[in-house]
Amino acid sequence: MTRLEDFRAYRERMNERIFGIDHQGIRRFFNLDTAAYRDGPLEGRVKELLGLVASAVLRCNDCIDYHLDQCVDAGWSDEELYDALNVALVVGGSIVIPHLRHAVETIDLLRVEGE
Amino acid sequence: MTRLEDFRAYRERMNERIFGIDHQGIRRFFNLDTAAYRDGPLEGRVKELLGLVASAVLRCNDCIDYHLDQCVDAGWSDEELYDALNVALVVGGSIVIPHLRHAVETIDLLRVEGE
Amino acid sequence: MTRLEDFRAYRERMNERIFGIDHQGIRRFFNLDTAAYRDGPLEGRVKELLGLVASAVLRCNDCIDYHLDQCVDAGWSDEELYDALNVALVVGGSIVIPHLRHAVETIDLLRVEGE
Amino acid sequence: MTRLEDFRAYRERMNERIFGIDHQGIRRFFNLDTAAYRDGPLEGRVKELLGLVASAVLRCNDCIDYHLDQCVDAGWSDEELYDALNVALVVGGSIVIPHLRHAVETIDLLRVEGE
Amino acid sequence: MTRLEDFRAYRERMNERIFGIDHQGIRRFFNLDTAAYRDGPLEGRVKELLGLVASAVLRCNDCIDYHLDQCVDAGWSDEELYDALNVALVVGGSIVIPHLRHAVETIDLLRVEGE
Amino acid sequence: MTRLEDFRAYRERMNERIFGIDHQGIRRFFNLDTAAYRDGPLEGRVKELLGLVASAVLRCNDCIDYHLDQCVDAGWSDEELYDALNVALVVGGSIVIPHLRHAVETIDLLRVEGE
Repeated sequence: MTRLEDFRAYRERMNERIFGIDHQGIRRFFNLDTAAYRDGPLEGRVKELLGLVASAVLRCNDCIDYHLDQCVDAGWSDEELYDALNVALVVGGSIVIPHLRHAVETIDLLRVEGE
Repeated sequence: MTRLEDFRAYRERMNERIFGIDHQGIRRFFNLDTAAYRDGPLEGRVKELLGLVASAVLRCNDCIDYHLDQCVDAGWSDEELYDALNVALVVGGSIVIPHLRHAVETIDLLRVEGE
Repeated sequence: MTRLEDFRAYRERMNERIFGIDHQGIRRFFNLDTAAYRDGPLEGRVKELLGLVASAVLRCNDCIDYHLDQCVDAGWSDEELYDALNVALVVGGSIVIPHLRHAVETIDLLRVEGE
Repeated sequence: MTRLEDFRAYRERMNERIFGIDHQGIRRFFNLDTAAYRDGPLEGRVKELLGLVASAVLRCNDCIDYHLDQCVDAGWSDEELYDALNVALVVGGSIVIPHLRHAVETIDLLRVEGE
Repeated sequence: MTRLEDFRAYRERMNERIFGIDHQGIRRFFNLDTAAYRDGPLEGRVKELLGLVASAVLRCNDCIDYHLDQCVDAGWSDEELYDALNVALVVGGSIVIPHLRHAVETIDLLRVEGE
Repeated sequence: MTRLEDFRAYRERMNERIFGIDHQGIRRFFNLDTAAYRDGPLEGRVKELLGLVASAVLRCNDCIDYHLDQCVDAGWSDEELYDALNVALVVGGSIVIPHLRHAVETIDLLRVEGE
């Protein structure tokens, strides 16, 4: 099992657990989160790219992996993803570099999965 | 003088002062920063939107104003900018709200300037 | 006009402007935010204190002022508020001190208003 | 050994190592940190809840686990802890979600321990 | 009155107010904070430089001004301060730039005061 | 293999992969990052200490390990490193403690390597 598969399994299991808690505020937050990336005035695929860069400057590997998964599904190329990550690197500084390493590794894992 | 004009004047004056310092590292960083938003694998206008959302989740009003200025120049509509800011709000939480207020006010000021 | 009155007027004006934008995601986020502080398994007044400490460690003066306003309305005493702010100071470090100054000044302003 | 037991063992071992360093500033900081959660104008158990929410919005899993341990000892119910975590989620945004997953898993582990 | 003089007056006034609160935890934190920059294994003047860079990457203008005041008193030259700020810029990214502008302006104000 | 050796191997492998991407902005950022710690108006060894404290307050374990490695090479003693970390602890608060544990463990690992 790759670390991506581990992450997806853990994420799915814990999201189910969290929905099982049945806290209305938390459930509504999750729905709002999903809705934020649907097509609207901006295309969903552009918003996934925004989510990726926001995750990178806030330095959250799980969030980066989630949005990379969506970005690859949405058809963004490696070069476009690197160009987005470069914006995150310049805005967020060298403290982002460990997350850039993680992101580039995740992109490589996603391309292997897609073969 | 609007607060936007004040900000632009201060920004220009201090950037000149910083270039006058002539620290090679700082000067190269500024050039790298400018270069990050030029057309590349991603269009510059998409990268300005990434810069806006990164600035919003990192909660920097000056950075928000700078990128909104560029985003409006690049032709993004109010509805598209609000949709990008909504991603920042969901990712960054209610702590982003004061910066959302600031951003919406800046968009209004920019549209008045453009009339 | 005190800075608190200025803040409340600006906040109200811009919140109306933001509701006027009529972005469904943003509007729902604002509703979710309001709902998070209502009585539930925890009393609303305890949750206002949680909101205050979260605002202090994230270093947002507007958010601190908003929650202090609510906390004073909810009947927390000065000593209790200082004790909560002390937790924020220890968790968040000396970088929180400028916001502690702001918070203590706000509490003083709120008590003058209440006289 | 569960991940909670691992964490407690590592935390205890390294805290001893840090006390062994005998840096007066660091030792005093640790004492100050402990003292911040004792009964005062606010009850210690309320301050543990404040520490939990501060840890969640600052996105530190070790800190979340430590405060959840204390919160469960202090008698907070699952529903009360979820309600506190919902405040953290709304204040801190979706970037908090991976830490919410971690926190909910920790609560489940703590309840198993308590059986 | 320059903005530095305003800041020092406000800082002194509110610190007195905070000491007046007489919360033992807060008072001890302030003492610990002062002690951290005294000569120890590292010279105090090096630790002021560390405080400056920490303040810059955490993006707190008041903290930057305070540490710059101390750094100039400790005899650091403009070129040395710029070199330290460059480290902050590279680590923290372009989001630090507004604070770099502020810092450079503060250094200029401090040199005028010193004339 | 210690966790330090794992980290260095991963860091080297991924840095090569990132250079292989051949994105001009990213490559220039990496060069700028390296250059920031060379001797200039401030000695390189002082700037490594600044990098360490910046990494600690921004709470990045990989960055802490990297700078500790450089700091030990530059001849800083354990007591000097602890004194720098104490500044980070006071500025950044108890949320830094898990990273202080990590840092102290890393220093111990580095000294074993150096024997």
